[in-house]
Amino acid sequence: MAPGRFITLEGGEGTGKSTLAAGLEEALGRRDVKVERTREPGGTPGAEEIRKLLVEGTADRWQPISEALLLYAARHDHVERHIKPALAAGRWVISDRFFDSTTAYQGAAGGVDAQTLATLRQLVLGDFAPDLTLILDLDPEAGLTRAGSRGTGEARFESKGLAFHQRLRQGFLDITKAEPERCVVIDAGQPPETVLADALAAIETRLGGRNER
Amino acid sequence: MAPGRFITLEGGEGTGKSTLAAGLEEALGRRDVKVERTREPGGTPGAEEIRKLLVEGTADRWQPISEALLLYAARHDHVERHIKPALAAGRWVISDRFFDSTTAYQGAAGGVDAQTLATLRQLVLGDFAPDLTLILDLDPEAGLTRAGSRGTGEARFESKGLAFHQRLRQGFLDITKAEPERCVVIDAGQPPETVLADALAAIETRLGGRNER
Repeated sequence: MAPGRFITLEGGEGTGKSTLAAGLEEALGRRDVKVERTREPGGTPGAEEIRKLLVEGTADRWQPISEALLLYAARHDHVERHIKPALAAGRWVISDRFFDSTTAYQGAAGGVDAQTLATLRQLVLGDFAPDLTLILDLDPEAGLTRAGSRGTGEARFESKGLAFHQRLRQGFLDITKAEPERCVVIDAGQPPETVLADALAAIETRLGGRNER
Repeated sequence: MAPGRFITLEGGEGTGKSTLAAGLEEALGRRDVKVERTREPGGTPGAEEIRKLLVEGTADRWQPISEALLLYAARHDHVERHIKPALAAGRWVISDRFFDSTTAYQGAAGGVDAQTLATLRQLVLGDFAPDLTLILDLDPEAGLTRAGSRGTGEARFESKGLAFHQRLRQGFLDITKAEPERCVVIDAGQPPETVLADALAAIETRLGGRNER
């Protein structure tokens, strides 16, 4: 059996990652691709416990390096106990956030040294990486307005202020520049059906659309 | 004001670290040293939350590398928000466990590569280290019997089996061989008052006994 593909959705608050994940699951399902949706932080029982520590509480609850360590602890659990077994079983995995969020949130926006985060990624994951990363790009003011209207109680990162979210947006764009073969930027200000069409086009172009690897 | 000294107590389960910490606090207090006792994992509100994730649940709840990342997330919080401010205020800090426990539990006993843990320590703490580490050495069978009689509900590491605890003991002894200028081994099979006397003698010899640095 051919292994599945690993696709990650990245971007700031309110950029439409969950909506896109649902749309991709449905569209790929119609093409007989078995899709498994997951998210970070989280995706396993242990990692969801760590998520609670990260998304609740005040904005200064954790310093960014502590956040990065918590995120990689959760990520290791998620990769070893969920993502890799699903890929090995031939399923496609779509994750709402993965390591690029740590690079952007704790690094570009939070101030942790990029080399520290790169070393941490290598220590924990080695060369494991997504086959394709879709970066949803949106003006932070528009994104925060969308995210604020959700009222999920996971507002710790939303409360960090506009300058933080502007550094975050630039952080995601810089990742795309550094790894253009893995990343595709999508304009998240478009209607959801256009965002989905752009994402499917990127999957077709970059991954060949079907289950060959 | 002279900065305080940082002393860590290390060793396996049931080796008498808490008893020794209480004895040291009293003995040093009689010499007008202001002592602050703390512990790991824990020592700050955030780190105590991480502690709960680590000490509860089944033995295979976390893989050792995830444990090490959680421990260093908690440790960064503990060092920056509790230990360093206390030392700067001239207090002596006595911590029940610190980074040597990660080297021994997750490394020597748990199988995480020593270089990975050394890199993680350097990334998170830089050159920050205890002024003196007292390693309480005891036959694991005796230690586990003592620890089991406590019934604290934090039995996750106690349940890992005798072979694990034998590797752990050797791990602590190897740390002492690698860093003899920082570490002193104390025979924890002796009566508590003798263990305390040995510890005070080590403090006198290694740190000069008073608050000069």
